[in-house]
Amino acid sequence: MGKSILNKIKVTPLKIVKVAKGNIMHIAEKKDLKNKIFSEAYFSKIKFGKIKAWKYHLKMTLNLVVPYGKVQFVFYSKKKGIFKVIKIGKNNYSRLTVPPKTWFGFKGISKPESIILNITNVGHNPKEILRCKTDDINFKW
Amino acid sequence: MGKSILNKIKVTPLKIVKVAKGNIMHIAEKKDLKNKIFSEAYFSKIKFGKIKAWKYHLKMTLNLVVPYGKVQFVFYSKKKGIFKVIKIGKNNYSRLTVPPKTWFGFKGISKPESIILNITNVGHNPKEILRCKTDDINFKW
Repeated sequence: MGKSILNKIKVTPLKIVKVAKGNIMHIAEKKDLKNKIFSEAYFSKIKFGKIKAWKYHLKMTLNLVVPYGKVQFVFYSKKKGIFKVIKIGKNNYSRLTVPPKTWFGFKGISKPESIILNITNVGHNPKEILRCKTDDINFKW
Repeated sequence: MGKSILNKIKVTPLKIVKVAKGNIMHIAEKKDLKNKIFSEAYFSKIKFGKIKAWKYHLKMTLNLVVPYGKVQFVFYSKKKGIFKVIKIGKNNYSRLTVPPKTWFGFKGISKPESIILNITNVGHNPKEILRCKTDDINFKW
């Protein structure tokens, strides 16, 4: 698909330490973060079948992990007109690293809901976020 | 209860932004971390009725958040012979900040299991952890 921002999205499988009383699940160490910068962490929940799309960060690198449920992420290169679909969570416990300047959205694909952890290098700032409506980008969810 | 390490445990209620498709739940910003240091983040799951106890960190400050389920944390001052019990998760979405040199353990009190996020200022290092058996400290779980 040529040189595209979508090639810069990284999927890192994460270690799960099996423990009978409840597993330990790795997320990230400082060295895994862009320029080793931690700015903020927050959870987003997404109900089964619901879609949150589309968003675009001018500066923020996302580090996304799904400890509960399963989420379909869709990334869009406006320049190339192409999409990249990645499902993480149950059966694929991985960290998604998403560089800025990437349109993205996501859908909950596990009942009753899923939980996404995002660790970012930039604090929440509406000025570095662009948004458009789900229908504004033509993707078959 | 006098001057005790247990008084240094901090409970910070966290903001939940209500969204119909799935809420946004705050966790922590850099300024919330001790000396603004992020070293590692990981999840611990704990099944309903199960107990993980006891552990003691020489250096690590814990930042504990429960995005799914409910967990009973118990902190113990060996010097004073006293306990502190704090339940977080469902109905009490808060961040627990636990200084080092505190004996602690926890129990899953929500079916089928609960998820704990820990954000730490020290990487995993068995040398800074002391452990003892659940029965070694006399607490009625």
